[in-house]
Amino acid sequence: MQDPVLLTPGPLSTSLATRSAMLRDWGSWDSAFNALTASVCRDLVDIAGAAASHVCVPLQGSGTFAVEAAVGTLVPREGKVLVPNNGAYCQRIVRILGYLGRAAVVLDHREDEPADVAHIDAALAADPAISHVAQVHCETGTGILNPLREIADVTAVHGRGLIVDAMSTFGALPIDAATMPFTALIAASGKCIEGVPGMGFVIAERDALEQAAGNSHSLALDLHDQWVYMRKTGQWRFTPPTHVVAALRAALDQFREAGGQPTRLARYRDNCRALVDGMHVLGLQPFLPAEVQAPIIVTFHAPADAAYDFSEFYRRVRERGFILYPGKLTTVNTFRVGCIGAIDAGVIERAVAAIAASLGDMGVTPTASA
Amino acid sequence: MQDPVLLTPGPLSTSLATRSAMLRDWGSWDSAFNALTASVCRDLVDIAGAAASHVCVPLQGSGTFAVEAAVGTLVPREGKVLVPNNGAYCQRIVRILGYLGRAAVVLDHREDEPADVAHIDAALAADPAISHVAQVHCETGTGILNPLREIADVTAVHGRGLIVDAMSTFGALPIDAATMPFTALIAASGKCIEGVPGMGFVIAERDALEQAAGNSHSLALDLHDQWVYMRKTGQWRFTPPTHVVAALRAALDQFREAGGQPTRLARYRDNCRALVDGMHVLGLQPFLPAEVQAPIIVTFHAPADAAYDFSEFYRRVRERGFILYPGKLTTVNTFRVGCIGAIDAGVIERAVAAIAASLGDMGVTPTASA
Repeated sequence: MQDPVLLTPGPLSTSLATRSAMLRDWGSWDSAFNALTASVCRDLVDIAGAAASHVCVPLQGSGTFAVEAAVGTLVPREGKVLVPNNGAYCQRIVRILGYLGRAAVVLDHREDEPADVAHIDAALAADPAISHVAQVHCETGTGILNPLREIADVTAVHGRGLIVDAMSTFGALPIDAATMPFTALIAASGKCIEGVPGMGFVIAERDALEQAAGNSHSLALDLHDQWVYMRKTGQWRFTPPTHVVAALRAALDQFREAGGQPTRLARYRDNCRALVDGMHVLGLQPFLPAEVQAPIIVTFHAPADAAYDFSEFYRRVRERGFILYPGKLTTVNTFRVGCIGAIDAGVIERAVAAIAASLGDMGVTPTASA
Repeated sequence: MQDPVLLTPGPLSTSLATRSAMLRDWGSWDSAFNALTASVCRDLVDIAGAAASHVCVPLQGSGTFAVEAAVGTLVPREGKVLVPNNGAYCQRIVRILGYLGRAAVVLDHREDEPADVAHIDAALAADPAISHVAQVHCETGTGILNPLREIADVTAVHGRGLIVDAMSTFGALPIDAATMPFTALIAASGKCIEGVPGMGFVIAERDALEQAAGNSHSLALDLHDQWVYMRKTGQWRFTPPTHVVAALRAALDQFREAGGQPTRLARYRDNCRALVDGMHVLGLQPFLPAEVQAPIIVTFHAPADAAYDFSEFYRRVRERGFILYPGKLTTVNTFRVGCIGAIDAGVIERAVAAIAASLGDMGVTPTASA
């Protein structure tokens, strides 16, 4: 009996090589582990094309911990943050700003509408007090791709800082600090690099980080302090998740050997295409128009059939070996299927077959409620 | 070639059964993982004898993240915290209070002196504004054991809250909420339960937690929010370190099967005795008097020989398969050796032999600088 395949936005299905890297214990003070951390950070900065200008600061905890750490450390206490909002993870940044007592300007969008660059431009022009834009790259609540390059351009033109939540895109979609200027970009171990969950990381502009002493509201989440200590000692300030770091190193090795970001994107695109095509045959339609759909996670309209019930559907698909993800929209009945992780289009085809069989068992006619 | 044994205060050497539990991927939204989290929390509360009055709130990150979360969530913004200070981890709590803007009263002690109950009593009597005492159980900076039971008594008599950093004692030394009242007690996955590092947990009084809404300075570290969400959904708010949780479950199974806390304490006492006795034969003396030494980690005076150099000593002992820990005292030259982890007195005896051989190679006459 195999473990179910995770068709979720993380934790993902990882390779056996990645998980096997956790069979060793590492001393967190030992030079071998320091070298491991340094090599992971070096690779992560390289993936963002940021070695000339940025540093990687790893942080214990989930991706949200790293997002809060980046905002709390890099936005001064009197700073003001513009948040183009088209989903749950944008709203989470707004919530973090509330906890931190940093001023926020929220630019509301529909959930099926990418962040509007003209509106961002106008908002920045209208309010010189806005110090930063906080942008989610792929809003995982729906799977929508926001136009990061254009947003980076307009933010740079206005001379403001840009903080990018690239949690579900880093390693899969192209990100290049040289042509897409950002102050900080945040992702995590258990996403498109296909490590296991347990650490986040922030790829931060060296200059911005140097000026960030004393900003943080939290010792644990003080990225400046973490960076200064790590630069001095090669070590993490507080106990690192050693096994998670070792798994991330193994995942990065496989990522590089396979051909890096372009190869990963190609595989995820294949997965996404196999998913959307297969579901189309079943009569299930994506919530988003194809042109704004990132190949990361797809939101589908639930079947418009009284016999459909997500819990029951989930249970039946799970029994067939695949773990789906619930929808996160409040006004439309949806479910989500991830395209990422150590899986290929053949796995996706089998997942679609499992979805078809499960709906059949439930007596659901899979014509979506779109 | 075996991996070196970690004689450090965590990460520790873990069992193969514990590490092997990380070979599976878990969906963080799945009911199987929710059941795993719930069972881990139940066992942790039971170990503290706290099921009637307390709940366990797990948190992503290192133990320090959980300490900051407990202080930030449970001490109201106008609260005032007494910190009996005899080492580095006490000072870390003071540093956290500074970040949080909570008032602190620091009761300084020498590093070889246990927290003084009469002084704590007097300080509480003198200042009714002190709302909480924050006490480190075993101060890992030296390895000193503080008299937790007496401190709990005197704190209760004064009607103040008690927050215990039991990071390096939980599971090894007896802790019982029924006879040793505390508001919250904090520990982590990678310590005496012998899991891997990556999550902390707070065993918090249900009543105190219920009144703690809105206290936290941080979304990620808001224990009240984490608890409310978990109670409602069975899930963690943000991506959990699934493999770390699975390893902790395996470690707890082994802990229970072996006989729980008394058995663990007996093994660590054997380890500590083998260590101190073996080092005594070499002429190396502990920094602390035996009566205040916890069987967790032992600080030794460095040899008073010009040929001694910690880096060189560390490297040579490491080559023989054992990882030591540096001293954390500023005024005395020391090093530390841990007694905890999935090791027995036979391993300790081999470590002492490796220490003897390494000092011999260096031409160091191991007469300590006591």
